[in-house]
Amino acid sequence: MLLLTNISQLVTLRGDSSVRRGAAMRDLAVIRDAAVLCAGGQIVVACKQREILRHPFFQRRKRKLNEIDCSGKTVTPGLVDSHTHLIFAEPRLIDFEKRISGATYEQIAVAGGGIRSSVSAVRAASTKSLADKALAALKKMQACGTTTVEAKSGYGLSVESEIRSLQAIRSAAKRWPGTVVPTLLGAHVVPAEWKQKPQEYVRQICEEMIPQVAQKRLATFVDVFCERGAFSPADTERIFAAAIKHGLATRAHIGQFSPCALKPLLANAPASFDHMDCFHEKDLPLLAGSNTIATLVPGANYFLGQGKYPDARKLIDSGVGVALATDFNPGTSPIWNMQFVLSLACTQMKMSPEEAITAATINGAHALGLAKRKGSIESGKDADFAIFSVGDYRELCYWFGGNVCKLAITATEVD
Amino acid sequence: MLLLTNISQLVTLRGDSSVRRGAAMRDLAVIRDAAVLCAGGQIVVACKQREILRHPFFQRRKRKLNEIDCSGKTVTPGLVDSHTHLIFAEPRLIDFEKRISGATYEQIAVAGGGIRSSVSAVRAASTKSLADKALAALKKMQACGTTTVEAKSGYGLSVESEIRSLQAIRSAAKRWPGTVVPTLLGAHVVPAEWKQKPQEYVRQICEEMIPQVAQKRLATFVDVFCERGAFSPADTERIFAAAIKHGLATRAHIGQFSPCALKPLLANAPASFDHMDCFHEKDLPLLAGSNTIATLVPGANYFLGQGKYPDARKLIDSGVGVALATDFNPGTSPIWNMQFVLSLACTQMKMSPEEAITAATINGAHALGLAKRKGSIESGKDADFAIFSVGDYRELCYWFGGNVCKLAITATEVD
Repeated sequence: MLLLTNISQLVTLRGDSSVRRGAAMRDLAVIRDAAVLCAGGQIVVACKQREILRHPFFQRRKRKLNEIDCSGKTVTPGLVDSHTHLIFAEPRLIDFEKRISGATYEQIAVAGGGIRSSVSAVRAASTKSLADKALAALKKMQACGTTTVEAKSGYGLSVESEIRSLQAIRSAAKRWPGTVVPTLLGAHVVPAEWKQKPQEYVRQICEEMIPQVAQKRLATFVDVFCERGAFSPADTERIFAAAIKHGLATRAHIGQFSPCALKPLLANAPASFDHMDCFHEKDLPLLAGSNTIATLVPGANYFLGQGKYPDARKLIDSGVGVALATDFNPGTSPIWNMQFVLSLACTQMKMSPEEAITAATINGAHALGLAKRKGSIESGKDADFAIFSVGDYRELCYWFGGNVCKLAITATEVD
Repeated sequence: MLLLTNISQLVTLRGDSSVRRGAAMRDLAVIRDAAVLCAGGQIVVACKQREILRHPFFQRRKRKLNEIDCSGKTVTPGLVDSHTHLIFAEPRLIDFEKRISGATYEQIAVAGGGIRSSVSAVRAASTKSLADKALAALKKMQACGTTTVEAKSGYGLSVESEIRSLQAIRSAAKRWPGTVVPTLLGAHVVPAEWKQKPQEYVRQICEEMIPQVAQKRLATFVDVFCERGAFSPADTERIFAAAIKHGLATRAHIGQFSPCALKPLLANAPASFDHMDCFHEKDLPLLAGSNTIATLVPGANYFLGQGKYPDARKLIDSGVGVALATDFNPGTSPIWNMQFVLSLACTQMKMSPEEAITAATINGAHALGLAKRKGSIESGKDADFAIFSVGDYRELCYWFGGNVCKLAITATEVD
């Protein structure tokens, strides 16, 4: 049993179980001077401090009680990072340096950088070394308050190396106390060996990769990078259909560089459209009327230094359910700290602290199909928490470039 | 005695003792597979690992040796944060929230925010509580690799409360192992009670504040916020003259919102002009020919969300010596991590990793008049180091929003 006591501000996000939209993104349902009691990995009750000792469950407790005094602290649901490219072998320092000096993508590629360098490195790496690096990243994420992480393959781009990447995710997840949601991103880019026959690669994804991954239960989601130069909307529909046929859920990278008609893709009820830097305004009512989340990843916008960010205000004010994630990856977003994503959301995208925290918790959980278990502090939900060394939840978004998380607790650690 | 061994990359920045400019900002003088030997708070030798055991000092060692294995790690001089408003009482959450929702400065002030809220809070706070908060911030800075910190007063704005602020800095500095350089910023803004007689406040700074601070040896520098709405260039010259008369060095906030003619101010040889968002191009050769550093503080640009950053490229390419600092303060730059300033410099201002690291070490030391002791790893200099858990120095600038510093060591900790 776990008891968090004397919490200055407990950000519960309790409420109905639907995607949070519009004004509902600004209701954090904060309890001041609060306590939370947990047992067997689940939340028993979250209430005012003065009410906890009277709670019947607390009085008939049998198990040993682990009590954590949270005086002067803010407690939130464990943060949900719903978009990461967890499996890669090396930082892309060549890209980084060359981009600063104004090099084009082509010049970066010629210098030995670009996504192909990540693909070569992942193909050459052992599954164990990939898993060890993934685990190291998961630990850093947890130290910053994240307890649920979506983890993509996508730098293998062959049946064998995508499966190995997903096996590395499984291996890391087994050694990490938080929750990992694995995603197959075979459709990241067309690998060099299929450049002349891209449709053959799409066929391989649909007829070999997806069936094998489903059969081995290595992924929950299938993701597609739907963009000019990567996969077309028609490719995306084809891949989504194969995913659904094999019992896998869907999500897509949409609108990072160019807008894309959302209607045909929404027919497959994907959990999330990610990036959404570009969109057609006429599609917003359709998106707002769906359960598909718009997952914004401003770390990539920041790192690329283009000075442009997704129009979160337009999306939220149109009723779209918005989530935030790191997009942790070596080429465009080498960041593991969701707190800095909150800062970007507030300072660069004019999301309120309340909207940003909702986007990083309950809406992130919706983007992973986990909202019944994750993303809010309510009886019966998983005992995932982040304890921050600040007295006001707005400070999670205010202090930047650092880590104010004191401790992140995951349900598996609560007996 | 301290021995750092097996260092993957030792960033020494060794070289001549002048301000680094132009191409010299790109020469980090990295030693791969290196070792550093220190004794009595000073660096004895920095060299290749294979050479260290042969060093005569090492062979005749008498004191106990503390050896730290730095395999796979990068070691730099302790980072120098040459511009912080260390003394404040509370985060400015009202400003933060209101600014996101598009409020003007006036609306923020009416809502109870703005600089006056910091002044009220500092005046009401005990010297001990200010010192305790300053110490907490210094510890966070050190955990991120910073070992030398410039610390300003400036939220007191009366003789008594500016002196109390500097006493709080002295008290915190005594309890922190790093080096603190105290700065009187009585000329931050004209306080409300002198709004009708601003020249009377300038007189008070020159004739009361500066003499008392000098007499009590509470500050090394006198700083002025030279800007429309704060203090004029003529005020600044007057305050600089008073500082010099009392044996204090000078520096100024210049060009945050509007450019200012630099020539008259350079006559007093200030150590640094800080911010420099705006400048007259014709002044750059003059600045490049002086020993005055341009200290850029992009954290403020980031936090204010205006999407504009100082033109570091123009400054560096004109031969100006550039430093980087956090501008740690509650209103516009609540950041203590110099690593994130490196990230901003590279991603938003197109400084190369080499230039950014030079700006955060040796040129920061020049901006504080400490380049003889700080900012590079050379025999006889202070044994201040930051040890980073990355194998390549470029990674200090690449990973962002986190902290890759494993340990920061200060000279006072090395016997």
